[in-house]
Amino acid sequence: MLNFSREKYLKVTGGAVGLREEIEKVVDEVYENGFKNIFLIGSGGAVATFYPFEFMINSTSTIPAYAEIAAEVVLQNHKQLSEQSLVILSSLSGTTQETVAAAKYCKEKGATTIGLTGEYNKPLADTVDFPIVNFAENDFASDGNQLVLYLLIFKLMNKNGDFPRYEEFAAQLEALPERLIEAKEQFEDKAEAFAVAYKDEPYHMVVGSGNTWGRAYSYAMCVLEEMQWIKTKSIHAAEFFHGTLELVEEDTSVLLLKGEDESRPLMDRVEAFAEKYTKKLTVIDTKAFELEGINEEFRKYLSPIVTSTLLQRLSVHLEDKRNHSLEIRRYYRTVAY
Amino acid sequence: MLNFSREKYLKVTGGAVGLREEIEKVVDEVYENGFKNIFLIGSGGAVATFYPFEFMINSTSTIPAYAEIAAEVVLQNHKQLSEQSLVILSSLSGTTQETVAAAKYCKEKGATTIGLTGEYNKPLADTVDFPIVNFAENDFASDGNQLVLYLLIFKLMNKNGDFPRYEEFAAQLEALPERLIEAKEQFEDKAEAFAVAYKDEPYHMVVGSGNTWGRAYSYAMCVLEEMQWIKTKSIHAAEFFHGTLELVEEDTSVLLLKGEDESRPLMDRVEAFAEKYTKKLTVIDTKAFELEGINEEFRKYLSPIVTSTLLQRLSVHLEDKRNHSLEIRRYYRTVAY
Repeated sequence: MLNFSREKYLKVTGGAVGLREEIEKVVDEVYENGFKNIFLIGSGGAVATFYPFEFMINSTSTIPAYAEIAAEVVLQNHKQLSEQSLVILSSLSGTTQETVAAAKYCKEKGATTIGLTGEYNKPLADTVDFPIVNFAENDFASDGNQLVLYLLIFKLMNKNGDFPRYEEFAAQLEALPERLIEAKEQFEDKAEAFAVAYKDEPYHMVVGSGNTWGRAYSYAMCVLEEMQWIKTKSIHAAEFFHGTLELVEEDTSVLLLKGEDESRPLMDRVEAFAEKYTKKLTVIDTKAFELEGINEEFRKYLSPIVTSTLLQRLSVHLEDKRNHSLEIRRYYRTVAY
Repeated sequence: MLNFSREKYLKVTGGAVGLREEIEKVVDEVYENGFKNIFLIGSGGAVATFYPFEFMINSTSTIPAYAEIAAEVVLQNHKQLSEQSLVILSSLSGTTQETVAAAKYCKEKGATTIGLTGEYNKPLADTVDFPIVNFAENDFASDGNQLVLYLLIFKLMNKNGDFPRYEEFAAQLEALPERLIEAKEQFEDKAEAFAVAYKDEPYHMVVGSGNTWGRAYSYAMCVLEEMQWIKTKSIHAAEFFHGTLELVEEDTSVLLLKGEDESRPLMDRVEAFAEKYTKKLTVIDTKAFELEGINEEFRKYLSPIVTSTLLQRLSVHLEDKRNHSLEIRRYYRTVAY
């Protein structure tokens, strides 16, 4: 596969699942102390990664969950955020200013804080009560981060009596990185063909629902816009029919991220519409990938990580075919604002 | 003002504030029965209208609030939605399929349901426990609907001990329609100038934060996309710096909806950035409008309705200068899907 190091990928993802014991200890301790709700706080890609987990907690658990944007939550005075909250924050570099400020804010409120990050001795790890650290190259950080979140969130739900089959799920997560590489390999030709066909496309609609909505939102914003300078509209499948559909013409690129959770019928409906009205429809469907050894009933939870691991291949090929590095920025960390 | 009937506007908005007594009776009854949380459920413009109220409840009240998309909530099995929930749904026509289905779903769950709608003897009014009906022309429906919501939500928060000055607030709402007309008049030249300058613009970024975020989301989707077939990206001010900023060039249109709530510094930051990097910046700032007789401390709550009343003028002028009726659709209620 183009620009893919199996070794590095397995190091990042293996590092994440290798934290299982440590994560479970953290869960035991925070659960013992008690909490009333869970806040998932980040900025950009980090908060987008939390959206599927907010959806999954709200669908699975009696614990209320709120995914919030770091820079806003410190201003809003959210009344549910209190000393009875468990707050999970995420910043790979450990230096994202808004996220570090949010960690401090939550600590001042008396909340219990867990920080997912790539390094010790950085502001996020130094601020939170429980740092969970997995070193990650930027390319693979998202998959690593999601694996940590699966262990953390599903163990929390297990302790709460909402997810009895956690042991089996966690054991299968350990084998998941190899399955995700197989999925990438299976997707490779399609990823390249997409980049060839759409390298000059000026605009994409990116559609998700349920636990793929966060992936649609972040792929549009953090990759297509930020890293490739291509205009996008990310749109929830259920909202697509309340406005954005009117823009669809036969040459409008529509990218659908289909997962396997309860909301799948919403995506089917957009797909049926798009098949009729545009010639530029791309469907990435997690159902097409075998994921050997993963129980059928767990597949729906894994739609976000399967989607993001596949999209990462799209990015590599877009970078190549468009001759536009994923690293260059006009503004972000380049100019002051 | 172009295509504006003062009489019709005052009929719709006056009808809304005229429901005060009826709304307060509904609140007394549902509060007596008790509930644990509030769900705000709609599709498209209706759920977008709820987003500011979700933000305001979460900032003001100890009652947890969740704004959810109708078509998704009926599939998700949201664990917080139960017989202890108070559900508020909204559909002007009373026939929006997803919203009517959601009302039925919530009733089956045993929740208490309130429906805001324009007509009796339509599916929404016939389904919910408490229909609140205000006839509205489509143009002015949003302002009418928001006035009903201010009365309903703030009376609920008042009963809960979170908003002691409700009487004063409600009395001032009764005078608000006249103040909104004055704001429209003050804004008229700017609205026309915007439409003249941007009539051929192919793409706008629309930015909001806090309780104007929902207005940014819906103006982009339900007006610019749906009614004018112009591409947009709606983006939360706090997320703007995590991707979308990279698209800004000196000829990129950026429309900022500045309100007066706690999140205003997020908008200041985007404004400072946009002033530097694009020549096509438009700022609609509620602070520029006097709203005589409204207490300073209530102004922040009114940012959404002030914003939407001004944006409605923008729409009228875009329709005129672009020679593109706000009524025509390629697909919505035109073809089956």
